Amino acid sequence: MTRSEIFEQIKKKKSYLCIGLDTDITKIPKHLLKYDDPVFEFNKQIIDATKEFCIAYKPNLAFYESLGPKGLESLKKAVDYIPSNIFKIADAKRGDIGNTSKMYAKAFFEYYGFDAVTVAPYMGSDSILPFLEFKNKWVIVLALTSNEGAKDFQYLQLKNDPSPNQRGVSSAEKVFGKVLSTTMNWGTPDNLMFVVGATRADMLTEIREIVPEHFLLVPGVGTQGGSLEEVSKHGMNKQCGLFVNSSRQIIYAGNGEDFAELAAKEAEKVQKEMATFLNKR
Amino acid sequence: MTRSEIFEQIKKKKSYLCIGLDTDITKIPKHLLKYDDPVFEFNKQIIDATKEFCIAYKPNLAFYESLGPKGLESLKKAVDYIPSNIFKIADAKRGDIGNTSKMYAKAFFEYYGFDAVTVAPYMGSDSILPFLEFKNKWVIVLALTSNEGAKDFQYLQLKNDPSPNQRGVSSAEKVFGKVLSTTMNWGTPDNLMFVVGATRADMLTEIREIVPEHFLLVPGVGTQGGSLEEVSKHGMNKQCGLFVNSSRQIIYAGNGEDFAELAAKEAEKVQKEMATFLNKR
Repeated sequence: MTRSEIFEQIKKKKSYLCIGLDTDITKIPKHLLKYDDPVFEFNKQIIDATKEFCIAYKPNLAFYESLGPKGLESLKKAVDYIPSNIFKIADAKRGDIGNTSKMYAKAFFEYYGFDAVTVAPYMGSDSILPFLEFKNKWVIVLALTSNEGAKDFQYLQLKNDPSPNQRGVSSAEKVFGKVLSTTMNWGTPDNLMFVVGATRADMLTEIREIVPEHFLLVPGVGTQGGSLEEVSKHGMNKQCGLFVNSSRQIIYAGNGEDFAELAAKEAEKVQKEMATFLNKR
Repeated sequence: MTRSEIFEQIKKKKSYLCIGLDTDITKIPKHLLKYDDPVFEFNKQIIDATKEFCIAYKPNLAFYESLGPKGLESLKKAVDYIPSNIFKIADAKRGDIGNTSKMYAKAFFEYYGFDAVTVAPYMGSDSILPFLEFKNKWVIVLALTSNEGAKDFQYLQLKNDPSPNQRGVSSAEKVFGKVLSTTMNWGTPDNLMFVVGATRADMLTEIREIVPEHFLLVPGVGTQGGSLEEVSKHGMNKQCGLFVNSSRQIIYAGNGEDFAELAAKEAEKVQKEMATFLNKR
């Protein structure tokens, strides 16, 4: 999917909701356990019920890997089941030396057919560039994450950062700002996005100074406490430029036979709120 | 395996060699392709031929994931096949928010039965702590990697680092030094190790000032250009404290019917060199 195709979907659905398919076999409704593949059955029903309200799905690989090869079969089936006009993000947070990153890229883009993969920046350019070589695929670099541990390294102040991209904003002097200003040069707003946690919505204005054009994938709204209104106010650009993710709040909205219906209601509620923010642009 | 059990193996085998099972189906000898599971067959023969010369095996997950669920079945078989007195490292470089890291930990420690997993530090404490909760298991944090991109973020200079662990060494003022001095407090030398690339052997003396006790996993010797002699000279501590990894140089030493025999010769050559450095301690 191209950037303009994503924007078309946003306008059409009046939504920039990404639903995290963090499907945990110990948390799904018990009646699904009678199916051959309960994880896929859960995802299938969630996708059927919520697909009109979201523009992206984001399975987190950990939940599938923890089940061994069988879990990855369930993942492959889910990715294949997602309609083609919905953006598919592998939340994998990979990053390794060049020849290894290339293997990961092949796995996510070619074998599973994802549109995008999240990557960790710690190992630098040659850990990220191999993912950018795939046509019509996207790389989403972790910049500022939504978890408590983000403060351990991402917020560290740098000494005399000589980056030409700092534009006088203080975020640029921190590790995450340097990650933004450096990695933005490795790709373009047409193949590169950034993860920016919603729990740091106050930072979004400064982040938009560094990366005005790029799409941002924003986790942490809902369960982790981030505010959709704040994120939308500070993070939206001309083409919306946001994927706001919600996982547990939607997929575990219910735990009975009507779980998918309740998930749909929750997704619709978020979508309706998003529609008002899109109208205000 | 405990730290003293690892040291026992090092003394017994006169080796601190870790062999990277980065098994690429496009690079293994063609005659193996007739087997049901060529990747496992390759690993099995490599393990049989080299197990007396090494103390650890380290499969890189990317090579198995790129083959889909089938690749992970091959991986599981290989891990099960490794003798129990040999340390098993999942080179996965994972790292995610707490509840997700826990799923990864379950996958690697419980499902596959690895002794250790490599993790990326970017997301901070709650991305690493869940791995440390598993008894008799190890976490290996990326500190300074062996690739070209290491310089992009790991070497950045920090402003006024107030870390009490800096001990006056200049590495402590860089991002990787801060990763070492911070994460060392999350575990102990009995459950935490660090990745330090061999291409930076000159940094090992300073790194040993920060983490004198911990085991270091050192990739980059051989194909990537690092020197075993330099690494051993600057990195060894009282209990050896080193796993030096070699992947391609050993596993792809040959490409014919005798590939395993050639791999064994290569592994033995490295082991013999290691024996001399151990004797010099």
